[in-house]
Amino acid sequence: MKLLDMMTEQSGAAAYVGYGSSLDPDMRYLTRFSCTDPVVYLKRRGEQGQIVVSQMEYGRAMQESAFLPVTRSEAGLLEILKEEPDHWKAMATMISRLAGGNLLVSPTFPAGLYAPLSSLCTVVVDDQTVERMRAVKSEEEIACIRMVQQATEASMKTARRMIRRAKVKKGVLQRGGEPLTAELVRQAIHTALQKYGCTGAETIVSCGPDSALPHHAGAGPLLAGEPIVIDIFPKSDTTGYYADMTRTYVKGEADPAIMEMYTAVRDAKAAGLGAIRAGAEGAAVHRVAVDLFAERGYATGTTGFTHNLGHGVGLAVHELPTLGPSGGPLGAGEVVTVEPGLYFPGIGGVRLEDLCVVRPDCAENLTRCKEEMIL
Amino acid sequence: MKLLDMMTEQSGAAAYVGYGSSLDPDMRYLTRFSCTDPVVYLKRRGEQGQIVVSQMEYGRAMQESAFLPVTRSEAGLLEILKEEPDHWKAMATMISRLAGGNLLVSPTFPAGLYAPLSSLCTVVVDDQTVERMRAVKSEEEIACIRMVQQATEASMKTARRMIRRAKVKKGVLQRGGEPLTAELVRQAIHTALQKYGCTGAETIVSCGPDSALPHHAGAGPLLAGEPIVIDIFPKSDTTGYYADMTRTYVKGEADPAIMEMYTAVRDAKAAGLGAIRAGAEGAAVHRVAVDLFAERGYATGTTGFTHNLGHGVGLAVHELPTLGPSGGPLGAGEVVTVEPGLYFPGIGGVRLEDLCVVRPDCAENLTRCKEEMIL
Repeated sequence: MKLLDMMTEQSGAAAYVGYGSSLDPDMRYLTRFSCTDPVVYLKRRGEQGQIVVSQMEYGRAMQESAFLPVTRSEAGLLEILKEEPDHWKAMATMISRLAGGNLLVSPTFPAGLYAPLSSLCTVVVDDQTVERMRAVKSEEEIACIRMVQQATEASMKTARRMIRRAKVKKGVLQRGGEPLTAELVRQAIHTALQKYGCTGAETIVSCGPDSALPHHAGAGPLLAGEPIVIDIFPKSDTTGYYADMTRTYVKGEADPAIMEMYTAVRDAKAAGLGAIRAGAEGAAVHRVAVDLFAERGYATGTTGFTHNLGHGVGLAVHELPTLGPSGGPLGAGEVVTVEPGLYFPGIGGVRLEDLCVVRPDCAENLTRCKEEMIL
Repeated sequence: MKLLDMMTEQSGAAAYVGYGSSLDPDMRYLTRFSCTDPVVYLKRRGEQGQIVVSQMEYGRAMQESAFLPVTRSEAGLLEILKEEPDHWKAMATMISRLAGGNLLVSPTFPAGLYAPLSSLCTVVVDDQTVERMRAVKSEEEIACIRMVQQATEASMKTARRMIRRAKVKKGVLQRGGEPLTAELVRQAIHTALQKYGCTGAETIVSCGPDSALPHHAGAGPLLAGEPIVIDIFPKSDTTGYYADMTRTYVKGEADPAIMEMYTAVRDAKAAGLGAIRAGAEGAAVHRVAVDLFAERGYATGTTGFTHNLGHGVGLAVHELPTLGPSGGPLGAGEVVTVEPGLYFPGIGGVRLEDLCVVRPDCAENLTRCKEEMIL
């Protein structure tokens, strides 16, 4: 929290303010309180942070949050609303009184509050201070991520088993005489994740032409001889931390073009992991994969390798740091994916993704899941 | 979308702009595109809306979104970034060029974009236009919600069966010789929801003292003779719509105080449902429950009935309209919960919640789940 005080001081503000539900990872990080309705986080320079919650959340916030909560009515909101019926303006007045000076706000701070606050005091928009704080994980946070990673791998095992056990009829995977679909595999993955207290959403099980679109969720019957990309990024129901892993499988025989892509992607992942250590530039790690793909004749851009090599994972599934052209130096304790992929319309896509911790001299890989293409 | 054009015109703006991922229900509603990374939605007055996506999402957006997507680079962002390396400022310049005039933005529009845009043009913050548009559902949207409601009820049945079949040992519910916990019931609910393509999060299974805090998630062994509040509000994985339902059960014999609370809550729900029709005031419907509770000797405030009678449900689990002191007239096609509850520290809580559609002359109850307290 020292960094937050420093940035607050630099911006000439008396306090840092955030506003949102715990779906906003900055808010979850700062408050350590899980809440579907928005709360106010306010930290006056050099003081403890405080959170302002609705009356209904007060008891739970007393038990769960990192701070002594204050109710909106204790913070004066009800009084203010008598003279200022506009909810946003009233909330702005409440915040301004609590802060007692100028404000530094998060970049995701809502314009609905920012605009009326700007007429009460000077409001500076922070850029990424809290996201930068979040990027470097404590060993406790890493333990949380490790647990989600274990759930992720267990659910991948379930998916792999379904594909391995499937029969093939006219090129379509079958289970119990019915086509095995992306939807059925996704459901089995999500059910497996539940057993570990984790929730999967938008899990990718994409096959054939769909696999050539990196974020296509996938739908319909799975096909033999085509890449099946499975990308699982669940969240822990209790801690809010994510993990992230991708494997690509082929049932039966793979096209030689896909096999070559698989080998290149696997090697790019190993090379990327090998280049990670504290101090290495995210851009340089990304370039290791770009160069390896170039050597094998694969382009980087609108086809081929179309995305960054990796991203931070924590209370958000995509967060700092960046393993991509704009990536700066990596810090020890950061948790990043390494996920090279190749995508060609008409051929399909292959992606492999591991999750690792940046350590002083290496990447500590949190991923234990086997690499195998043919099932 | 006519309302959006009208509000844009009234605010003297050339275009309405939203920014966010599909976790923002306004964005999901406007774009009909499910995306974990933020996209820009821009609608010039009288024209079709457009969305600006990253290169990686372009193919999927072509297939899934309501509009022809534009990539950030087509929208000029890469060119702008060459001269303006700050991501937020560059994005603001891109938006301002696309809009070609002053802007109306959503209340959740990020301050990080609002601040630099304000130096390029006049930016007016909208209040609730899109949320008001979202409040009134088409029959197609109601069909989506109905499907999630069916999943919700199936999962409630699973939970009820677990409690009914539990043995009791020293006041603690048992299954297979082990204590039956809130966590086990929650997991079974979530697994049941998965089978219907829905995801539950923060599902409440709270017992005994925990039940006296309306939003306490609940933890640990379930107790006989104590209220068990189960509140399930899952989201459809495909459509993004929510449903919402609560039941309160007691295993074995209930304290007379709890039984009286249950009867009052059940009657308040029926009275609330009976007062709903298009044109009725949300505040008046809420007052029906307050008055009924008062007649039975239960307070409304910091204990007793501590929250609103209900809220809209759609692409957000809490949205307009409000059945509470500030609630205005209800509109036909709105979908609302009716969820009276009574909470007393030291005694416990009872809540019952149905989901209904506001129709011209009545509430159409979407809830089929039985009411029974003793299992």
